[in-house]
Amino acid sequence: MLIIGERINSTRKFIREAVLKRDAQFIKDEAAKQLQFGAQVLDLNAGVAGEEAELLSWLVGVVQELGDVPLCLDTADPEALQRALPLCKQIPMINSITEEPDRFDRIFPIVKEYKTKVIALCMPACATPTGVEDRMATANRLVGRLLDGGIPVDSIYVDPCVFPIGTGPEHGPAVLDAISHILSQYPGIHTSCGVSNVSYGLPGRRLLNEVFLVMLMSRGMDAAIVDPCDKLMMARITAVDALSGRDPYCQSYIQAYREGRLSTEPIPVR
Amino acid sequence: MLIIGERINSTRKFIREAVLKRDAQFIKDEAAKQLQFGAQVLDLNAGVAGEEAELLSWLVGVVQELGDVPLCLDTADPEALQRALPLCKQIPMINSITEEPDRFDRIFPIVKEYKTKVIALCMPACATPTGVEDRMATANRLVGRLLDGGIPVDSIYVDPCVFPIGTGPEHGPAVLDAISHILSQYPGIHTSCGVSNVSYGLPGRRLLNEVFLVMLMSRGMDAAIVDPCDKLMMARITAVDALSGRDPYCQSYIQAYREGRLSTEPIPVR
Repeated sequence: MLIIGERINSTRKFIREAVLKRDAQFIKDEAAKQLQFGAQVLDLNAGVAGEEAELLSWLVGVVQELGDVPLCLDTADPEALQRALPLCKQIPMINSITEEPDRFDRIFPIVKEYKTKVIALCMPACATPTGVEDRMATANRLVGRLLDGGIPVDSIYVDPCVFPIGTGPEHGPAVLDAISHILSQYPGIHTSCGVSNVSYGLPGRRLLNEVFLVMLMSRGMDAAIVDPCDKLMMARITAVDALSGRDPYCQSYIQAYREGRLSTEPIPVR
Repeated sequence: MLIIGERINSTRKFIREAVLKRDAQFIKDEAAKQLQFGAQVLDLNAGVAGEEAELLSWLVGVVQELGDVPLCLDTADPEALQRALPLCKQIPMINSITEEPDRFDRIFPIVKEYKTKVIALCMPACATPTGVEDRMATANRLVGRLLDGGIPVDSIYVDPCVFPIGTGPEHGPAVLDAISHILSQYPGIHTSCGVSNVSYGLPGRRLLNEVFLVMLMSRGMDAAIVDPCDKLMMARITAVDALSGRDPYCQSYIQAYREGRLSTEPIPVR
């Protein structure tokens, strides 16, 4: 399971403030903490902090003071990508490309030129997907264009686009089934989700997010943008890896247990 | 999700003692508690308490003092079944039939005569299954014999036989894939598992059990023998039902939240 750390995102108030103040130490601490807790890639988002192109490049520079950290550039702005990419010490991921004409046509050449990995978000331009057929139709068009354009299959992370389950019972099964279909249809491809959208508007969001992540992993999802400092979520990822046979003889699981990383203590309902 | 309450099982010390002392009130309290917490069927096991045939019938009588409670008779002893079945106010489940010749030949006629539901345990007679192929070969033989013998497909609950994940990384994926295959191969059939076997010999068993249950449900498993008084487990079953589209607009989930039955909000670590 590829764990992409989500914390350096300017939609979070503390991050936005740190970015606007150019508080490099705060950002580095957030980065170091996520790596320490098991993130393998760090998502960087400067989208709501003003000068996105300049600020994303600043984030890339600051985080890489820690070393050759794998990054995921979280922006829909081609200019921000063009400025940030030459600064990356390792080839990053791009989060994300969609089939919206303007976004596809401007992001695709960058993915191609820099040989990045890319999250392919199955969001139609002007509609809310209602079922697995919608999502597969979008996935087939989007993945088809990426493959035809020469992007290697294992550079593609398909995100079937999670919608709130409270707005319709079809949204959960549609995404779960899309994961199964995409993985069987395109051997070697990856899948990823923005899991927490599923619980939007409902109480007990952390429970729903955690359970949906496990359900998605059970279908084969192999990457997720999560908070690696969330011990309960990370405990479940460790357990799924053991139960999926990806952790032979549960060695990593047992190690995590010994290091106290599997704390699952509940707290009373709020 | 059919929740079969597991607590009235004579392998548990308190139950064994209550059964041996004919402590009807203790058994009735255990039954009432499980029904209150959401069990739809109660498993009854008198297998390690001595005179199984007599004691299972005693359990059936005691529990049914609460009303027409759906029961699951948990025994491999045909005599115990023959004595208990006429006492059941509703047609019960039988847990379980296997393809072991002696067991199949003696249990099958009882399933047929009383039109019971039956758990078909995919345990080969003399071997440890190593992968999904083993389990599917057993499932195909066992289900085939039940269907050929006239048992309706929706009376059959296939259990792909859970083995401890600590003894081999193949045991998790084999069971998960078997659930998917069985459900697609026999439309209308049910699946069930003894989930907690998966964590035998490992630390943090509750975490593993809970995560494996969610993974199994994500593959479509629609029945499980669990402890309905385990609020953490039940909260996750409620969440899976919401996320699977089986609880339209999350009405049962929201109700459970309001009633304080989802008291599993994890501790934030930030």
